[in-house]
Amino acid sequence: MERAIQVAIENVRSGRGGPFGALVVRNNELVATGVNLVTGTNDPTAHAEIVAIRAACEKLGTFQLSDCEIYTSCEPCPMCLGAIYWARPKQFYYSCTRQAAALAGFDDAFIYNELCLAPGQRSIPGHCLSPELGGKPFEEWAKTANKVPY
Amino acid sequence: MERAIQVAIENVRSGRGGPFGALVVRNNELVATGVNLVTGTNDPTAHAEIVAIRAACEKLGTFQLSDCEIYTSCEPCPMCLGAIYWARPKQFYYSCTRQAAALAGFDDAFIYNELCLAPGQRSIPGHCLSPELGGKPFEEWAKTANKVPY
Repeated sequence: MERAIQVAIENVRSGRGGPFGALVVRNNELVATGVNLVTGTNDPTAHAEIVAIRAACEKLGTFQLSDCEIYTSCEPCPMCLGAIYWARPKQFYYSCTRQAAALAGFDDAFIYNELCLAPGQRSIPGHCLSPELGGKPFEEWAKTANKVPY
Repeated sequence: MERAIQVAIENVRSGRGGPFGALVVRNNELVATGVNLVTGTNDPTAHAEIVAIRAACEKLGTFQLSDCEIYTSCEPCPMCLGAIYWARPKQFYYSCTRQAAALAGFDDAFIYNELCLAPGQRSIPGHCLSPELGGKPFEEWAKTANKVPY
């Protein structure tokens, strides 16, 4: 955890992005490191956990981190928590909380609250269109024999 | 929306990933298209919306899609909804729901439910470590004058 916090501090000093760092670890060995690169790379999804997960998957040649653990300097935002669920590590460790991130000016806690609202009631509203069409990709998926589930 | 669904169907047929497609649109003009590339690129974060947001930001040279709208073939999972909040488009449109995705074998609805639990009670548990250390990157951020907020 001290290492995740250290790379977060170094990232602020480098000017590449926000004050966040994350590590993917397997059997107590470091697999990959990630830092927040949102502003430095024009990528709003480049949070430390996402960057670390993508790097670890590329290094290990897999889309599942089942035998790994993640250390992150701050409680993952909903985007990063979702990414953790899709990568499926064993567990994760964090230092400061979403409330501390909110005090530092970040939207993590706000987005957690927004997720619990119905799509049409959120500050960025989601509208359902043509729901009868949306099942067609799933029908194609169901009838595909050689697909790779994930 | 028909275009988002069509690229989702084509993506299944191509074998590159799951049955999902998304578009970023500005002033009724297509900015970028994304499809699910999780299994084809070993990237668990390569959902259609994330791929489309990253491509649109790269094309427009920005980390904010404030004047854009997103069309996605399925209700965004929490990871993708989080990404939408960080990219800050005006609104988004989706076709089928998280419940339809669950019936097709995807974890979207499951992850929405997990997000509402306390970190330690989730199926992928999160543990708080050294919370007193986690504030240090924010202290560094606060005292940095020439930072780029996001």
